[in-house]
Amino acid sequence: MSSSTSTPTARDAVIVDPARGRLHPLGIDRVRIESGFWADRQRLNAEATQPHCLAWEQRVGWIDNFARTANGDIAGHRHGREFSDSDVYKLIEALAWEAGRTGDPETEAEAEVRRLGALVEAAQCPDGYINTQYGHEGQAPRYSDLALGHELYCFGHLIQAAVARIRTGHGDEDAIVRVARRAADHLCREFGPGARDAVCGHPEIEAGLAELARATGCPRYLEQARLFVDRRGHGTLPPIEYGPVYFQDDVPVRDAEVLRGHAVRALYLTAGAIDVAVERGDDELLEAARAQFDRALARRTYVTGGMGSHHQDEAFGEDFELPADRSYCETCAGVGAIMVAWRLLLATGDERYGDVIERTLYNVVATSMSEEGTAFFYANTLHQRTPTQQTAVDQPSPRAEAQLRAPWFEVSCCPTNVSRTLSSLAGLVATSTESGVQIHQFMTGTIHATIKGGHGADQEVEIRVDTAYPDDGRITVTIERPPAGPMDLTVRIPEWAGGATVDGARVGPGARTVTRRFRAGESVTVDLAVAPRVLAADPRVDAVRGCVAVQRGPEVLCLESVDLPRGLSVEDIELSPSFRVIDDDRGPVLVGARAIPRLDGSWPYHEVATGSAGPRTPVGAPAGAPGAALPGIRLIPYHAWANRGPSTMRVWMPVSTD
Amino acid sequence: MSSSTSTPTARDAVIVDPARGRLHPLGIDRVRIESGFWADRQRLNAEATQPHCLAWEQRVGWIDNFARTANGDIAGHRHGREFSDSDVYKLIEALAWEAGRTGDPETEAEAEVRRLGALVEAAQCPDGYINTQYGHEGQAPRYSDLALGHELYCFGHLIQAAVARIRTGHGDEDAIVRVARRAADHLCREFGPGARDAVCGHPEIEAGLAELARATGCPRYLEQARLFVDRRGHGTLPPIEYGPVYFQDDVPVRDAEVLRGHAVRALYLTAGAIDVAVERGDDELLEAARAQFDRALARRTYVTGGMGSHHQDEAFGEDFELPADRSYCETCAGVGAIMVAWRLLLATGDERYGDVIERTLYNVVATSMSEEGTAFFYANTLHQRTPTQQTAVDQPSPRAEAQLRAPWFEVSCCPTNVSRTLSSLAGLVATSTESGVQIHQFMTGTIHATIKGGHGADQEVEIRVDTAYPDDGRITVTIERPPAGPMDLTVRIPEWAGGATVDGARVGPGARTVTRRFRAGESVTVDLAVAPRVLAADPRVDAVRGCVAVQRGPEVLCLESVDLPRGLSVEDIELSPSFRVIDDDRGPVLVGARAIPRLDGSWPYHEVATGSAGPRTPVGAPAGAPGAALPGIRLIPYHAWANRGPSTMRVWMPVSTD
Repeated sequence: MSSSTSTPTARDAVIVDPARGRLHPLGIDRVRIESGFWADRQRLNAEATQPHCLAWEQRVGWIDNFARTANGDIAGHRHGREFSDSDVYKLIEALAWEAGRTGDPETEAEAEVRRLGALVEAAQCPDGYINTQYGHEGQAPRYSDLALGHELYCFGHLIQAAVARIRTGHGDEDAIVRVARRAADHLCREFGPGARDAVCGHPEIEAGLAELARATGCPRYLEQARLFVDRRGHGTLPPIEYGPVYFQDDVPVRDAEVLRGHAVRALYLTAGAIDVAVERGDDELLEAARAQFDRALARRTYVTGGMGSHHQDEAFGEDFELPADRSYCETCAGVGAIMVAWRLLLATGDERYGDVIERTLYNVVATSMSEEGTAFFYANTLHQRTPTQQTAVDQPSPRAEAQLRAPWFEVSCCPTNVSRTLSSLAGLVATSTESGVQIHQFMTGTIHATIKGGHGADQEVEIRVDTAYPDDGRITVTIERPPAGPMDLTVRIPEWAGGATVDGARVGPGARTVTRRFRAGESVTVDLAVAPRVLAADPRVDAVRGCVAVQRGPEVLCLESVDLPRGLSVEDIELSPSFRVIDDDRGPVLVGARAIPRLDGSWPYHEVATGSAGPRTPVGAPAGAPGAALPGIRLIPYHAWANRGPSTMRVWMPVSTD
Repeated sequence: MSSSTSTPTARDAVIVDPARGRLHPLGIDRVRIESGFWADRQRLNAEATQPHCLAWEQRVGWIDNFARTANGDIAGHRHGREFSDSDVYKLIEALAWEAGRTGDPETEAEAEVRRLGALVEAAQCPDGYINTQYGHEGQAPRYSDLALGHELYCFGHLIQAAVARIRTGHGDEDAIVRVARRAADHLCREFGPGARDAVCGHPEIEAGLAELARATGCPRYLEQARLFVDRRGHGTLPPIEYGPVYFQDDVPVRDAEVLRGHAVRALYLTAGAIDVAVERGDDELLEAARAQFDRALARRTYVTGGMGSHHQDEAFGEDFELPADRSYCETCAGVGAIMVAWRLLLATGDERYGDVIERTLYNVVATSMSEEGTAFFYANTLHQRTPTQQTAVDQPSPRAEAQLRAPWFEVSCCPTNVSRTLSSLAGLVATSTESGVQIHQFMTGTIHATIKGGHGADQEVEIRVDTAYPDDGRITVTIERPPAGPMDLTVRIPEWAGGATVDGARVGPGARTVTRRFRAGESVTVDLAVAPRVLAADPRVDAVRGCVAVQRGPEVLCLESVDLPRGLSVEDIELSPSFRVIDDDRGPVLVGARAIPRLDGSWPYHEVATGSAGPRTPVGAPAGAPGAALPGIRLIPYHAWANRGPSTMRVWMPVSTD
């Protein structure tokens, strides 16, 4: 079996590589992000986040677990939770994309991928099995805890790291590629037809194997991914406290109607199901996955794009169960939502999924990381009632709530997930078809694509994007190198951008295409109105009834107590019925807020009159005077909160009825 | 050391026996509940619940654990969670009160107490240690997991069972009394001054030891209880995921300002702290406990009296973090709140604590148990969005959410906690002082008390109460056997009873006293207006902004989907601004409800206009027409929901603004 990376389907450094679909992805070698919001974060990721993650994984012993496994003395000396191997693999993947992004073989990232790859390879068993928690002397046997042991989940992340290496130009000279191929072959033997009829309690292997099949041209891996997708939902996993819904073993993927259970598990599974559906032409499965994701967007998603309201089992709540003060919105669920949305965008061309990616990037991924790039939110609340507490900088956080961002976690899936998303971010920006180029995310930089010209021959196109987005809504798209014939230039007009124009003409949301023969240097100007917009929620979202949120461009805003007059908490604020939000030269300002008088009693419920008096008048008490009007209060992007010390914060703000 | 039950302080079959305080408790031998709401439940408890609990504890092996421990073959054969011993003890306590309530030595309850007592005694180690999970060959050593092992928690419940036996007339002829005395002596050696400087991760031993000191007159137990109370909050317990706040080890009891962390732990600890404070005349500690409970009532309590909004760690949320659809309101926290409130009522005479007991009895304790007495809610949600699922009747529930009441749980603390509360319920009804009798809870039956007459001599008083409460608000109190001189007859007027009268005269809430020389057979008539009252919440309770709840007498009402026109869920309902609630001859009816038009989109957030148009007008869409008016809808007591098959339900109902 050839292990060459050159296969019929491999195409550039793309982050997902479907064999069919409406849009063809453009890899991180074809799209360069040069400056602005995301370029700054990519730089922070390379210079601060990745060295930080590496230092922590060394410090807490998760890297050393591989060395001990290789040396045969892991039992009794292992550090970290049962899935800590996966965090090493995610860091390798992040470094692999980073090395691929710069293209420089002398980078620190490339050196670290090689060093870590050698450590991992030394720990692999001769039959391809690799895990530092199971199967060695003094440890529990392999596959003895499929429900919660995370072994196949770890394999999945290992394989994703190898796929990143293959797509950035590596092959069997690379240790991680060799390890992943051997591991995948092992899995196909152990879990193939006629072998163990089982799945892993945490999906991830499905997308990993499907992508490895794409990257290597080996259909056996795709078939194994299909088996895992089809087996789930038939109750092969043992009972656990949260029930089979926790790991989506309650209903087969193609029969389910909505995302449910543990949010990250549900999203990773959906990504894998889409990969399998696309490769196999299984439109029924694709439609089932799409419908589940759509329904989750319509009923189980926060205004930030965050998913998951249950802390207990890190799960989706019921429809419209979206409490702001108990939003879990795990950072990794945001990454999972982007994985799903990107796959659906490629498959369907529906720019609603481009909207999902934008919303989640600006309001979940960007929120997780601190301004310094070395601390993270694991969960992303939309309402912080009590001042956030300082987090110890020198020890892993137990995923504690109500704290500032933490440098590391006992369960530290999120930092490396953010890092791999940032390293590979250029892969989400644009796509091509035979007739043109589609721009989904707005970042200053260049896009190279190969399209068919008027004569059916491949033609290289170069496009330059200039913008101060999201601060400003103007995006200038310049065709530096046009094709010989006409070209479709498509831009996503976000759902929020009422009044958007393309070259001065009003356009509605969705994919908007300009088709013409472009001259070199000719520009198309897109204007998106980024003025603050006030939002309300479906009345079934009980938790924010009578409240509004504010969004400016793609950024959801929030009220943070450091912007309030001294001594006030966000709990003390309400908006008068005539409030408004304006943009001054420093950004959005809330006008018409007032302080709620504190009326502390011994019981927080009071009788009210009904009938013509309406239910708001307390019985036996004069209506309270409205609170004191406050001067204009600055609103900040939600992602920027908790960078100025302990504070309270809220996205949804109550509006007084009088 | 004498183990006689006759001590200077022992007084009747009281459920708590403080040495000082404003009010003297009257035991279950002095107060008889004869008919009505609670008599029905006491009968159900005796005839259905207790045999049910006994059968389940046998079936799941928790009782057998004691036999195996006695036989030396417990290791490897133990059933249940690490704290299952405590559920056997709580059942013994429930049976002990039940045997004491009837006073009949031939009851099944008495026979079971003896049988179980013998089993438990056989399992006790010679040094007094007793636990089926620790310390035997092949098990983890004693006290090797104080954070989560629950050993002292189990001791506490063992001791409470023994206290129930002592107060219902038993002494060292009773196995449980002997076992508890030996266990308490063991604990004083192991954890006394100069020995282990440690506490248990789950409070309960504090109240147990203080009560055993009262029941036996042995001050050493009180001193040990004091040590446990004072040691907590100094970080002696090891770190756990939820932090030291989970078991109240974050702040010393006398320095804390509010109940926090795991709700049952917080409430049991507070009960123990009050016992210690009262016995030792430590008013600072008493005041600290009272202030914490008061603040929890003002900011961290549901309208039902339920406490705890976090599922993850079964904990109190932040102030005003009280989501209806994620209310945890563990049944055991309700029992804990009653334990605390009763102690504070005895200490202070403040009838606000009588209100707490009433609210929690009717809306938490009564809610937990099914109409048949053989199924229970562990958590008590105030809003069920999706139809409750049927629960398997033949296997323990994993404490699953969104289900009908379950027959048993893997963690089954609640059923026996409800049972012991019901068996001993008469002990919460009335108290005495030198000058009179105080009636706190309204139930048809008789009260016997001994007061000082005009000449300072003990005089027996007999009082009869007749009422159809809570359906009807009239309570007739008849002095069947008056004292020779004048007597104070005090009744609690609930905080909700605006317009209440005593013998026709308007009275406000609180303790209302009639002082006079009563003739035999003379009555005092109390009228409480139980007409439905509409309630709103403090605006800081974000989760129910713009909603109302309805209470009728002490019962919080709810809307259950089985009372709606076919096909509607409670999610589909809103109230018009002019809605009202009336009482017809079958009970409360909601008039003015309407169906919300379902407006399903792909994203549940929409832009609204601001300024003079107000924030409720969607941008670019005509205001939706109000939904179709519905006929009057029956409201039912919250405690009665989920007895008619799967349904949706809500306590807080949204009121439209137009």
